[in-house]
Amino acid sequence: MRLETASEKKLGRPRDERARRSVLDAVREQLKQGSLCGMTMEGIARQAGVGKQTLYRWWPSVAEVALEALIEEAGEHCPLPETGSLRGDLVAFLSGAFRVITQRTGSLLRCLMVEAQKNPEFRTRFREQFIRSRQEALTTLLRRHVAPPTDTYPIVDMVYGSLWYRLLVGHQPLDDTLAEQLADVVVALLQRGDTGSAG
Amino acid sequence: MRLETASEKKLGRPRDERARRSVLDAVREQLKQGSLCGMTMEGIARQAGVGKQTLYRWWPSVAEVALEALIEEAGEHCPLPETGSLRGDLVAFLSGAFRVITQRTGSLLRCLMVEAQKNPEFRTRFREQFIRSRQEALTTLLRRHVAPPTDTYPIVDMVYGSLWYRLLVGHQPLDDTLAEQLADVVVALLQRGDTGSAG
Repeated sequence: MRLETASEKKLGRPRDERARRSVLDAVREQLKQGSLCGMTMEGIARQAGVGKQTLYRWWPSVAEVALEALIEEAGEHCPLPETGSLRGDLVAFLSGAFRVITQRTGSLLRCLMVEAQKNPEFRTRFREQFIRSRQEALTTLLRRHVAPPTDTYPIVDMVYGSLWYRLLVGHQPLDDTLAEQLADVVVALLQRGDTGSAG
Repeated sequence: MRLETASEKKLGRPRDERARRSVLDAVREQLKQGSLCGMTMEGIARQAGVGKQTLYRWWPSVAEVALEALIEEAGEHCPLPETGSLRGDLVAFLSGAFRVITQRTGSLLRCLMVEAQKNPEFRTRFREQFIRSRQEALTTLLRRHVAPPTDTYPIVDMVYGSLWYRLLVGHQPLDDTLAEQLADVVVALLQRGDTGSAG
């Protein structure tokens, strides 16, 4: 069963699932075209064929609708690969994520990170609902192959940090070379049994 | 000699160094109080005791003044340490940077990264004038102790990526533990002669 979002909890009653689907489909269509960033609530309502008030009843802002569409997108397009090796899984996982970001979600991710800096409440939701689920996906992948390190944060930070740093600064591309380099580093660190917490 | 900034080049004549100094001092005073993010050009001009037009003649926006103040700040507060070991230098360098960010520049850095997502021209200047100089400082530090790796990007991205990711997302602190963990990882990778480009 789908977990209730903050807006549903606040509302205290179930959503009309069909209208909700129309909105998310419309938003994901915009996302495909890379144009979600400049959208308004009016535009989303028109695209989805629902009333503006209906939309506002469920989501307080474009960023909140976009976050929900992004979470769906990430779940569908970034499954955990099973290649049989840690390095293979990491390369496939990261290359896949970089491809989705480069082709579809990059500008939206940048917009949502901007919104997170401006709005502390949204920052918390972005972190709890999106960032954390991506961190957990990577940790799950690592734990399939190696004993769980006591603290996976240095590794998780280095991998997702590299991704976000390149996405936001734009000094280098998110490409297969980076996916392979990061996979090599993670494998080297885990094979040493060194996750950064020992000298 | 100080390099000319974009605004000086466009202007084609030298600045009045004393008024420039007043503005940058006023901005850095605001920076110390953590309040630069919400400042206006009017407020900066008032604080510095210069005319608004004078300010606009040199800098097109608050972000541009702030960037120049930040570059000064980084140069003064983040000197390259000389502890005698790669690990010691890295820990000192990163701890120092994290301290400056936590105590002074964190909210400004977040504002400038936001501005960089909204304004492509500013993004280029932020990258070329600030991000790159920080990358070069780290690379210089590494090369004091080890033969230059052919491609330092995976390491530079992992270190600064971790920093920015924690600063922007806020899931974990920028503290001495992270400085030590990152230093350990970099030392481990460089001692293997593995910068992420070899399997």
